[in-house]
Amino acid sequence: MTYTPVDYDTYDFANRRHIGPSPEEMAAMLRAVGAASLDALMDETIPASIQQKTPLGWPALTEHEFLAKMRDVAGMNKVMTSLIGQGYYGTNTPPAIQRNILENPAWYTAYTPYQPEIAQGRLEALLNYQTMVADLTGLPVANASLLDEATAAAEAMTMAERSAKSKARGFFVDRNCHPQTIAVIKTRAAPLGIEVHVGDPAAMDASAVFGGIFQYPGTYGHVTDYTDQIEALHAFKAIAVVATDLLALTMIKEPGAMGADIAVGSSQRFGVPLGYGGPHAAFMACKDELKRAMPGRIVGVSIDSHGNMAYRLSLQTREQHIRREKATSNVCTAQALLAVMASFYAVFHGPKGLRAIAERVHFATVRLGRALRAAGAKVSPDAFFDTITVEVGVGQAGILAAARHEGLNFRKIGHDRVGISLDETTDERVLMRVLRAFGIDGVAPHRAELGFPEAMVRTSDYLTHPVFHMNRAESEMMRYMRRLSDRDLALDRAMIPLGSCTMKLNAAAEMMPITWPEFGSLHPFVPVDQAQGYAYAISDLSEKLCEITGYDAMSMQPNSGAQGEYAGLLTIAAYHRANGGAARDVCLIPTSAHGTNPASAQMAGMKVVVVKSAPNGDVDLDDFREKAAAAGDRLAACMITYPSTHGVFEETVREVCQITHDHGGQVYIDGANMNALVGLVKPGKIGGDVSHLNLHKTFAIPHGGGGPGMGPIGVGAHLAPYLPGHPEQTGLEEGPVSATPYGSASILLISWAYCLMMGGEGLTQATRVAILNANYIAARLNGAYPILFMGNKGRVAHECILDTRPFADVGVTVDDIAKRLIDNGFHAPTMSWPVTGTLMVEPTESETKAEIDRFITALLAIREEIRAVEDGEISAEDSPLRHAPHTVNDLVAEWDRKYSREQACFPPGAFRVDKYWPPVGRVDNVHGDRNLICTCPPLSDYAEAAE
Amino acid sequence: MTYTPVDYDTYDFANRRHIGPSPEEMAAMLRAVGAASLDALMDETIPASIQQKTPLGWPALTEHEFLAKMRDVAGMNKVMTSLIGQGYYGTNTPPAIQRNILENPAWYTAYTPYQPEIAQGRLEALLNYQTMVADLTGLPVANASLLDEATAAAEAMTMAERSAKSKARGFFVDRNCHPQTIAVIKTRAAPLGIEVHVGDPAAMDASAVFGGIFQYPGTYGHVTDYTDQIEALHAFKAIAVVATDLLALTMIKEPGAMGADIAVGSSQRFGVPLGYGGPHAAFMACKDELKRAMPGRIVGVSIDSHGNMAYRLSLQTREQHIRREKATSNVCTAQALLAVMASFYAVFHGPKGLRAIAERVHFATVRLGRALRAAGAKVSPDAFFDTITVEVGVGQAGILAAARHEGLNFRKIGHDRVGISLDETTDERVLMRVLRAFGIDGVAPHRAELGFPEAMVRTSDYLTHPVFHMNRAESEMMRYMRRLSDRDLALDRAMIPLGSCTMKLNAAAEMMPITWPEFGSLHPFVPVDQAQGYAYAISDLSEKLCEITGYDAMSMQPNSGAQGEYAGLLTIAAYHRANGGAARDVCLIPTSAHGTNPASAQMAGMKVVVVKSAPNGDVDLDDFREKAAAAGDRLAACMITYPSTHGVFEETVREVCQITHDHGGQVYIDGANMNALVGLVKPGKIGGDVSHLNLHKTFAIPHGGGGPGMGPIGVGAHLAPYLPGHPEQTGLEEGPVSATPYGSASILLISWAYCLMMGGEGLTQATRVAILNANYIAARLNGAYPILFMGNKGRVAHECILDTRPFADVGVTVDDIAKRLIDNGFHAPTMSWPVTGTLMVEPTESETKAEIDRFITALLAIREEIRAVEDGEISAEDSPLRHAPHTVNDLVAEWDRKYSREQACFPPGAFRVDKYWPPVGRVDNVHGDRNLICTCPPLSDYAEAAE
Repeated sequence: MTYTPVDYDTYDFANRRHIGPSPEEMAAMLRAVGAASLDALMDETIPASIQQKTPLGWPALTEHEFLAKMRDVAGMNKVMTSLIGQGYYGTNTPPAIQRNILENPAWYTAYTPYQPEIAQGRLEALLNYQTMVADLTGLPVANASLLDEATAAAEAMTMAERSAKSKARGFFVDRNCHPQTIAVIKTRAAPLGIEVHVGDPAAMDASAVFGGIFQYPGTYGHVTDYTDQIEALHAFKAIAVVATDLLALTMIKEPGAMGADIAVGSSQRFGVPLGYGGPHAAFMACKDELKRAMPGRIVGVSIDSHGNMAYRLSLQTREQHIRREKATSNVCTAQALLAVMASFYAVFHGPKGLRAIAERVHFATVRLGRALRAAGAKVSPDAFFDTITVEVGVGQAGILAAARHEGLNFRKIGHDRVGISLDETTDERVLMRVLRAFGIDGVAPHRAELGFPEAMVRTSDYLTHPVFHMNRAESEMMRYMRRLSDRDLALDRAMIPLGSCTMKLNAAAEMMPITWPEFGSLHPFVPVDQAQGYAYAISDLSEKLCEITGYDAMSMQPNSGAQGEYAGLLTIAAYHRANGGAARDVCLIPTSAHGTNPASAQMAGMKVVVVKSAPNGDVDLDDFREKAAAAGDRLAACMITYPSTHGVFEETVREVCQITHDHGGQVYIDGANMNALVGLVKPGKIGGDVSHLNLHKTFAIPHGGGGPGMGPIGVGAHLAPYLPGHPEQTGLEEGPVSATPYGSASILLISWAYCLMMGGEGLTQATRVAILNANYIAARLNGAYPILFMGNKGRVAHECILDTRPFADVGVTVDDIAKRLIDNGFHAPTMSWPVTGTLMVEPTESETKAEIDRFITALLAIREEIRAVEDGEISAEDSPLRHAPHTVNDLVAEWDRKYSREQACFPPGAFRVDKYWPPVGRVDNVHGDRNLICTCPPLSDYAEAAE
Repeated sequence: MTYTPVDYDTYDFANRRHIGPSPEEMAAMLRAVGAASLDALMDETIPASIQQKTPLGWPALTEHEFLAKMRDVAGMNKVMTSLIGQGYYGTNTPPAIQRNILENPAWYTAYTPYQPEIAQGRLEALLNYQTMVADLTGLPVANASLLDEATAAAEAMTMAERSAKSKARGFFVDRNCHPQTIAVIKTRAAPLGIEVHVGDPAAMDASAVFGGIFQYPGTYGHVTDYTDQIEALHAFKAIAVVATDLLALTMIKEPGAMGADIAVGSSQRFGVPLGYGGPHAAFMACKDELKRAMPGRIVGVSIDSHGNMAYRLSLQTREQHIRREKATSNVCTAQALLAVMASFYAVFHGPKGLRAIAERVHFATVRLGRALRAAGAKVSPDAFFDTITVEVGVGQAGILAAARHEGLNFRKIGHDRVGISLDETTDERVLMRVLRAFGIDGVAPHRAELGFPEAMVRTSDYLTHPVFHMNRAESEMMRYMRRLSDRDLALDRAMIPLGSCTMKLNAAAEMMPITWPEFGSLHPFVPVDQAQGYAYAISDLSEKLCEITGYDAMSMQPNSGAQGEYAGLLTIAAYHRANGGAARDVCLIPTSAHGTNPASAQMAGMKVVVVKSAPNGDVDLDDFREKAAAAGDRLAACMITYPSTHGVFEETVREVCQITHDHGGQVYIDGANMNALVGLVKPGKIGGDVSHLNLHKTFAIPHGGGGPGMGPIGVGAHLAPYLPGHPEQTGLEEGPVSATPYGSASILLISWAYCLMMGGEGLTQATRVAILNANYIAARLNGAYPILFMGNKGRVAHECILDTRPFADVGVTVDDIAKRLIDNGFHAPTMSWPVTGTLMVEPTESETKAEIDRFITALLAIREEIRAVEDGEISAEDSPLRHAPHTVNDLVAEWDRKYSREQACFPPGAFRVDKYWPPVGRVDNVHGDRNLICTCPPLSDYAEAAE
């Protein structure tokens, strides 16, 4: 026969879906960069000495094979009704929120709102979140989320330390705090020399501490008024922290009313699936006088260039952005997507609805307690909200088994008690099952009876802002969510060429399983036999990440990149301690490092010694050698980023590692730029001892508008024994860096999906194409913009730095260029990092040549606009650069500009029909910081601003 | 204790999610309409004599109870691999299409694109669909989808009848057509007096027929060249129809190359889930000279007011819109959402990808056939694409059981054969399972070997338009889908106040189960024991719809409202035949009826007699009485709509029914306005014998941008024996009106969800609020716009008609008002129906007072703009009314208008920040019809149009 089949892979996720450029486009790009082939380009880019020649070894699955596999893996998990509590509760995610936020790329592919003009939608949602937290805790200022309740408590401790006037070194921790909170606090305290006093609040010695934390309600259910303890702390100029529960606060007295300085907790039960531990948004609120000491992002209100109200991130410059080794927290990633969900949950229910939910939960708990007592059980505490504990003595195992037989998980407490926490999903049938587990038939009918003293009833209002009182019909809610998302520019509309942020495709298939109930509804502390699907997925992902990185073991616990750094350094410190190097406390960090590096090092109790950069951007090897020698046997570690944050594969990386090892130090290779390495270079094989991986960069977890993220760490075999543990796994009271053993476990599935569907070969090809795309941009823009830092063969890695400092002479700023890109329909590249006055561009492998060309077109047109300023045709002040971004209101208003409306709004990168219109003009940062408002302003303010 | 629980239902889908107005809003609206209470308003609106006093009897489920229940029901279905074929095949829905189209309210809540300016996105997607169909069939003109392959074949028959010059009364049907196609053709032919000749094409008598249809490939697999038969038909001036398969056509000679005049088929296997029968998009393509005879919607290309290219529906006025009883088809609903999915599937794969999929399917079939033959099986046919049949003799039951044991469904053919159809999802493991079912181990390796003669290999190109050659990276695809959806205005951004179309909330929870594999992947002809979940859902929905309508039995088969009318009239006709009334053939229809009524009546073989309207809009009772008497014992039926299409509860409805019954006729009550009745009035209890329900209006199935829909019919017990059957259920060869027993079965789940979550009380309240909302609009706008047709107490039903004819005197048209509403961010109400020069407004219960007020604000502002014309301040030609809708390009261009840009773009109804911008100016309808282009124009045309 002569039939010739078509030459085409019918299906190949890596090449046809994930990797943007087609083979033809790649050929054209290689021509443009002057490389003979992709392999030749790699050889010109990556030092031969570190290139990996063994291919990654697993095959790729198609999307449908993957989804079929995931249905099998989902079946390995056992969905039970978990009444374990301990900070994690069943919740009903409103389907409209699931579909329109969690499953909507307009929300989940957005970046952190550093460019406020294209982020007004999620900034409004986050401001709603802050308002909700502030109202419910009774404290005036809240941030836009932290990673989990346990790390939020640890952050509160260090915030107390630096804010308190007390000079005591102790920190009191209520023994009724959740065990994981106590453990994380202990982990955090040790390297900082803070003494943790765990005990009964009634017996607290306030004179010995700079602060204390109380769990309210307590982990075993207690609803206790801590006003006296807080007063005692204040008397000694110490800071009082209350770890609390937002749902309970709709009924019980708020921490602010007890005088608390700081409140922390989790907003998980506001509609965010359990997901075997996360991601969820933790919250923090504080008194006004402490706000500038608060870690995390704070959304604030400012004005735009027209004087209209506009949202933005406030106080952006206060933390690791500028403070580096003086930073007091390494918090970088937040849990934006989950905070947005929780805020919409509050909007969906409003204050009355939330209280009604709380009452249902509470009255059911009262009813349960009464039934148990009537049957002769010893139930405590006397005052509670949703949690009770039952003394069961030697019958514990039997009761737990009986509960499991009823499809329930109770909490095992010690050897003779069980805990039961009810939640929004507890209905009559669940209640009957609970009673059956205790051998009780029937229960007295529901009554509106309080399970705590009337004095503890909350009397103040909350959620009084109109947004929490809008009509909650689904049509209105859906349109509100749509309107907010339309204000934002995310990956579903355009590339986001943020250097160092690796904004790649988050494929639909990768996102699907996370909302399946078999993955979404697992409590983090269920017995392991109920989570075999997760166990399998996490173990397989770990193996693959080990193969990718060349390390021997992984910890999946850190739930952000900065957490990974911190966990890695703790691992190094523990290793040194165990090997006679307890005195090793110096950490060498180059000037070009991410700001989180020095912050993490100081949190790990290390002294940061900064190493200079050479003029070509590389680590200054002489300086490094000198400082390593100076540290001598105090050298704990060096932290380097590879390829460097300047976007270059330094030839000297092996030497840097060697020097460190020669002095007995350990090498931390920051995995932020892993997208330039996968399949080609293994950090564990070129001298690294530890690396973290930003799964939300390289491994396809979406950025969610500013979180979630995951930062697992890989280590060499010698470090494996010192990886962070978790009390729920080890029974030990310290060691963990996150609240749960696998951090934000459910999104690990996204990275696993990515690895499975790409296959080893696809992942490697992705790396090659990421480097090709960056070199293509560099080649096309070089000339128009000087490219800073190239390798010795004139190649960049997976990103490149455009120098815009020369334009400062004529008054054109890097901001002008960034904002003008918005008119072109693009998110700006990373601004002024790692070098002030530059733009760092990272296209990733997912962008097509067509989209990259549109971006290049935009930047070249902007260059011509700059040239007009240079040539004196127009001043910078009068130019479209300075007036950018242009809004529809500019068009409608009188036009007195020195350029046309057409030029303003339809620069060459912009779509004609499908143009993105920013909802506000350029936002005034200074105004916002000077007039810090970080809860929803009253409606009258909107009207005034509009005038 | 003194604690007072909050007064709030924590959860109530009906009142808190589905029904828009809050209690406070309802109170304000009642004040505005001057009604004492909602019940009082009902009493003033609905004649007491017909009001239902027994409440609907089932309780409401919460969203989470519903989803939990659905997971149980899903578990009752058994997901097997169906290789049954017969027009339905496994397919891989690309996850990005599932998430961004099928699960995205921006696509699924859109209306039919009658207002082209706000529908350019879906019009482009549908034009892609037409281009795909035209290319693959090799015929130049295609429509934008039909209901299913079987009805498309029946439509082709009647199209052939009216187009052929042959005067023969026969229609030849290939015995290798799918059985359901033959059955539906027979159903359709009988009342029209067409003789159906089923037979072997080789023995066809072309002289005896006006046309013939051939299945290609045949239902048992045959790939046969019908060129000779087609020539024979042409020799007798008859029309040749080919029912075909789009995937096969990527490899085998296309119908156009055989000389076919018309091609029909299903695009299901292009990425649309099986869904136990639908919804899927059927297609039709034809020769150029037949295009004006083609039923269904055709998207065409025209220009807008600026001369730019713009899409629109072509030839809109040719069918039931104006032809009514002279109409040749009642096709109204299409399958837009599914056609959009199929078109994106083609864009995702491109011509090479589609052919590669086809080759994989085909070569696997060849391999399977070879393995079976090698094992001694008798396999036919010799030339095939994806389907083979195996003679198994008395072993049939054993083989079918062995297949089921392997998780496979084969097709049972007669008593001694089985059919096997492979598809895109067939992988090596499935192939091995097929062989194991035959007791065969192992198979020769894959080869690229043809299973049909080389002469049948397709040689022509297809999908050459650039859209099918764009970069298919998921980022690009996602952005393309987003851009198209952004051009459109759907329910996710604003109310769509279309009278008679009932654009209510399609809640997220209602939509979720349809994409679960347990519902999505069932073949329509699986053994019933595999579809027990569907059986339960359909049976419970039927019971509830019977309770709602007061009928005794339901048929779920009709997959559109018009199909329901047709099925209902066939049922009446069959009843008459069985009861000695074979001569009854007169159908009385008021002038105000939906255009589909007379079209359906003529298709059912009835003679339409039109009854006048009285000046108040009611049926003219004298005329009715007179015409019923004139028909006498030829009276078959009357068709009335209740409340009337004028939006009024006519007091005389019982009398109309009585008169009809007195003359032996049956009463068809059109259920289009059922949203004004549910829980308050039962059509089956006020004299109706049959009604269809538009589930896509009243029962929350989304409109999908012009389909899917479902039109089940309820009947009295006396008619139940005559409801449409289906050969897969009855074994009979005629009777069905749709290709599958339950029409578009999967979307029945949406209506079931709606009934379950609303509860009987919620449904009734929805009706009340729908009436309140309409009366509120009437009350607020009366004065500004005359309200046509009110009941005798000054009340309208669930919709109201605004008379805009008075403004014609000053040159302001109803079109001007409709297009000006776009500037305000609204879809126009129904235009010029049922009365020319009017707007019919239906808000539904799902819209809040806030949204309705925004709409009223817009219409009042428009009234002021009309007043300015009336007052001579501005001419109609110069006014913003005539220039509407305004685009961004208007703003950017020179402004020489007699009104401001501000007035143009920000009329009082428009959002300031979140304004919807139409992508084109007013579309020129005449230009489009005169220059009919209905495949994608070459890119050069876009450029020219832009100049």
